Amino acid sequence: MKIALIPGDGIGPEVTYESRRVLNAIGEKFGHSFSFTEVPAGGNAIDSFGHPLPQESLDECKKSDAVLLGAVGGPKWDDLPGELRPEQALLGLRKGLGVFANLRPAVLFSQLKGASALKEEIIGDGIDILVVRELTGGIYFGPKTLKEVPGGYEATDTEVYNTGEIKRIARVAFNAAMKRNKRLCSVDKANILESSRLWRKVVIEVAKEYPEVELSHMYVDNCAMQLIRYPRQFDVIVTSNMFGDILSDEASMLTGSLGMLPSASLGSSTLGLYEPIHGTAPDIAGQNKANPLASILSTAMMLRYSFNLEKEAQLIEDAVRGVLEDGYRTGDIMETGKKLVGTKEMGDLVIAKL
Amino acid sequence: MKIALIPGDGIGPEVTYESRRVLNAIGEKFGHSFSFTEVPAGGNAIDSFGHPLPQESLDECKKSDAVLLGAVGGPKWDDLPGELRPEQALLGLRKGLGVFANLRPAVLFSQLKGASALKEEIIGDGIDILVVRELTGGIYFGPKTLKEVPGGYEATDTEVYNTGEIKRIARVAFNAAMKRNKRLCSVDKANILESSRLWRKVVIEVAKEYPEVELSHMYVDNCAMQLIRYPRQFDVIVTSNMFGDILSDEASMLTGSLGMLPSASLGSSTLGLYEPIHGTAPDIAGQNKANPLASILSTAMMLRYSFNLEKEAQLIEDAVRGVLEDGYRTGDIMETGKKLVGTKEMGDLVIAKL
Ligand SMILES: CC(C)[C@H](C(=O)O)[C@@H](O)C(=O)O
Ligand SMILES: CC(C)[C@H](C(=O)O)[C@@H](O)C(=O)O
Repeated sequence: MKIALIPGDGIGPEVTYESRRVLNAIGEKFGHSFSFTEVPAGGNAIDSFGHPLPQESLDECKKSDAVLLGAVGGPKWDDLPGELRPEQALLGLRKGLGVFANLRPAVLFSQLKGASALKEEIIGDGIDILVVRELTGGIYFGPKTLKEVPGGYEATDTEVYNTGEIKRIARVAFNAAMKRNKRLCSVDKANILESSRLWRKVVIEVAKEYPEVELSHMYVDNCAMQLIRYPRQFDVIVTSNMFGDILSDEASMLTGSLGMLPSASLGSSTLGLYEPIHGTAPDIAGQNKANPLASILSTAMMLRYSFNLEKEAQLIEDAVRGVLEDGYRTGDIMETGKKLVGTKEMGDLVIAKL
Repeated sequence: MKIALIPGDGIGPEVTYESRRVLNAIGEKFGHSFSFTEVPAGGNAIDSFGHPLPQESLDECKKSDAVLLGAVGGPKWDDLPGELRPEQALLGLRKGLGVFANLRPAVLFSQLKGASALKEEIIGDGIDILVVRELTGGIYFGPKTLKEVPGGYEATDTEVYNTGEIKRIARVAFNAAMKRNKRLCSVDKANILESSRLWRKVVIEVAKEYPEVELSHMYVDNCAMQLIRYPRQFDVIVTSNMFGDILSDEASMLTGSLGMLPSASLGSSTLGLYEPIHGTAPDIAGQNKANPLASILSTAMMLRYSFNLEKEAQLIEDAVRGVLEDGYRTGDIMETGKKLVGTKEMGDLVIAKL
């Protein structure tokens, strides 16, 4: 199993290093062999090659069975022109690999309940939402214009969706709902947007293939409220690229477990892109302080979705919960009475649990 | 002072009735004379005239000094085609009156602290954010298309902003910040959207006219998180129509005071549109259960922005706080130990405080 490893910038290299160790441990235990090829992308690639995603990097990823990414970006590259900034590596990878479905679980780890911003009575038994965000369409990739007009400029961006794009993301979401609590909420702004009206129509069409799933629809503004008011009402949420960007971040923050949350971006083959949702945290980079658990949990998603190794995936997830249960914490999730450990030690602890 | 009154649907008529009484009480006390003309719009206008915003209604509003709206819409009209739905009344009023700046205060009333979904340590001294949302541009009003393509349809919506539109909304936001804590956060998605890059450039340009205001920029996904993580960091937020729709609802819900929050929509003249942010609540309509305070507080905004009657506006706001302080609550904000009252009684109590 050939993995393209993109350490990236900031804390990216440290956390992916631990993930690699975890995957090797899984390999030994179960007799799988994972091979890793390090691939430059992000700020470091700008520095070395003058481009956030050199063609060779993309080609190497395409030839792999899965891509594990740390995080890209940092203040050093913030003032570069748009097309040369580190986040272009993400956009290029998404589009280049055709990974149109971004799966972002927003899970409250019961051991970290105290970290949520929400009151206990709202959290109740916990939060466990899966946001399925469309990732290669919409206003991110639609035509853009900038032209001079009297008094200055006029700029446009275009939200574009077609039936095929909506069908395939809807199927990913319905399939995910089938493996969970069989409830899907499709989020749009159908009272305003033509693309949302098409979105809603197609989702309703696809729903016929999944009679067991209970489908609901919600406007995006209402969803931004409902996530706070009563997050437990949600099982799976499916939405467009732009709305998914906003809502998945909101949902993650509700859990208070930002340093803990993985993500998977999938296409029509088994090749997937896996990365933590956190950023590069340049302030703590290289200090053995970063929390590697989001990256480690991303490898669990990789095992599940790209390699169909469900048992191995669960073992990693159980190991992470076990380590939290034993009271070990990195700085970002530290609470009084717990045992503070560094990036490497956290990696060791997870491997020991395996 | 000529006020166009749009009672609207659901609880709209009840709450605006109390607002009218409050305005009359202010008029008597200070020797102002307010005249009211009732104007049909929303679902009731669809029923009576076949259109959510008959031309005569819009004309009447345009001839007035201010418009006070209850709320429009309801399940009865949900299945009508887009252009005939009650929310078209809102869009038509906004565009027709040219009210390009939507001011939405998200305030936590200290008397209702318990109602917030957030933990006490996050709320701290309270939440007091003003969201300034652009209201007559962006993807709400840009060109839309729907066309047949192989395999189905393709739909597009266009986000459009020009320098002039951004300048004028930025000035409203800077002016508001000058009267508050002099901090303005402009929210965009400049790492992706051309329109956001123009937005950011123009806001930075306008900032030169307001050297005392501390300006910051934030991506919309991050803002959706920061509102939850640390809402007290915000004073005034300025953003586009679509982002403002989402973020202002999120910010309102954080306060837990949804039934309490007013809004003002302003243009380049003093003519403004004032309405509570809550909806028509058809389930409790006509039962003397609705909370009229959001509508009453909307009249305070009207006095302030359309009539420049700051003292009178503050008197209303103080009266509302006084009534809460005395322990009176409508059902939506009821807590044990407080005194439950109906819509009319709440109106009486506010008038008595005046
Ligand atoms: C960095 C940025 C371009 C990216 C996005 O908007 O998709 C990020 O916010 C994300 O969610 O992965
Ligand atoms: C009803 C709808 C069209 C409207 C909007 O999106 O502007 C509403 O959500 C609002 O915020 O006033």
